Amino acid sequence: MNTIEVCLSPLLFSSRTTNSEHLVVIVDVLRATSAFCAAFDSGVRSIIPLAELEELFEYKMKGYPTAAEREGEKVNFADFGNSPVAFLQSDLRGKDLAYSTTNGTQAVEPAKSSEDIVTAAFVNLDAVCEWVTRQDKDVVILCSGWKNTFSLEDTLCAGAIIETLEATGDFEAFSDASLAALVLWQNMKGDLIENTSSGSHFQRLLNLGQHADLAYCFNLNSSIAVPVWDGSCFRNSNAK
Amino acid sequence: MNTIEVCLSPLLFSSRTTNSEHLVVIVDVLRATSAFCAAFDSGVRSIIPLAELEELFEYKMKGYPTAAEREGEKVNFADFGNSPVAFLQSDLRGKDLAYSTTNGTQAVEPAKSSEDIVTAAFVNLDAVCEWVTRQDKDVVILCSGWKNTFSLEDTLCAGAIIETLEATGDFEAFSDASLAALVLWQNMKGDLIENTSSGSHFQRLLNLGQHADLAYCFNLNSSIAVPVWDGSCFRNSNAK
Repeated sequence: MNTIEVCLSPLLFSSRTTNSEHLVVIVDVLRATSAFCAAFDSGVRSIIPLAELEELFEYKMKGYPTAAEREGEKVNFADFGNSPVAFLQSDLRGKDLAYSTTNGTQAVEPAKSSEDIVTAAFVNLDAVCEWVTRQDKDVVILCSGWKNTFSLEDTLCAGAIIETLEATGDFEAFSDASLAALVLWQNMKGDLIENTSSGSHFQRLLNLGQHADLAYCFNLNSSIAVPVWDGSCFRNSNAK
Repeated sequence: MNTIEVCLSPLLFSSRTTNSEHLVVIVDVLRATSAFCAAFDSGVRSIIPLAELEELFEYKMKGYPTAAEREGEKVNFADFGNSPVAFLQSDLRGKDLAYSTTNGTQAVEPAKSSEDIVTAAFVNLDAVCEWVTRQDKDVVILCSGWKNTFSLEDTLCAGAIIETLEATGDFEAFSDASLAALVLWQNMKGDLIENTSSGSHFQRLLNLGQHADLAYCFNLNSSIAVPVWDGSCFRNSNAK
């Protein structure tokens, strides 16, 4: 039996109790880990996550397509913001995409010491859970949150991952954070958009007019992309 | 209208967004902030929270009664552990109690920069909420957790505080953490002990045989103690 632990913020990752060989599932529903799936579905070969805009600019100078978002808005020198819908409308076949966001790409940094890293969102829930199940390791779900604080939609997605993995019979969640994530998911999944619409990040994106992105991000299993960290970038483990 | 924000771990306190003049409500249901009420109800004049056992030992040498707990168990040189029931069975009239625990007294340190500090638990829920309402300030609820991780019972108590303060009409909670705490509380309050019994800290205390303490800590409003920080120690604002 493998364990599942949840960290509700990147700041809490160092306080996790899972010390065994484990894999980390990074969640940033609004919008980085949803957008990763859209980018792979539009043909991207790899995604290079970058914490700093300075690094991203260097990639741009070298001719890489770039995606960057701060405070929910596109950074002006980048080709893309953090909008999954914009990726779906583009042809990025064979491209390596340099990517920097407020929260999601920052969460990769603390996870780098871990054995395996994969990113998850509602859009690739089942695909990720199937991949995770095949790895047969203890799991730590790392919620990206918003500027290190708790995020409702990431916690709900963690709850959905727990429910799916526990249903295989090969995983058992522990810790109070897992219990809370599961209870919240089970109470709110009936109408996910309605129930999360009072969340702060949902409201932020709504105010920025990102309706299409919100609809995309809360649509379960529209993608089979499984973005897996290979030591320097994410590649789609389910690429054809 | 005053705001209510929740920090689900002391590690997240520095990421709070409330920067206005505010008061901090520290919650450590199992067991420090419950035990504070029991100590005041047994006649204690003040409680001196100490992060380090070395400091506590100095107080002991000076003749102060001491209480200390690590990993749920009484520290052997101290007069008391962290058991509220043990305080209730003692006569501590007029005493100044030096106190150090794994979580609760540690949470005082980051809060010290705040305007006001009070401690809350299920046992003094209404009394604390009445006091907080009178202060007419923005509120940050700081959950002590367990070694900086998320704790179910502290989050539920935060939800109970939000529900009580919002009912006055003078407070409005914001942030995803508040929303989650309130939803968890409203879903679990029907049978608090049953619903929290799978929590990790509850199980830890159960394994240590602390049944009477658990019953005490989940009994709402058995105390009217309001432990308020005066700059160097906690004093009962409701003392006769």
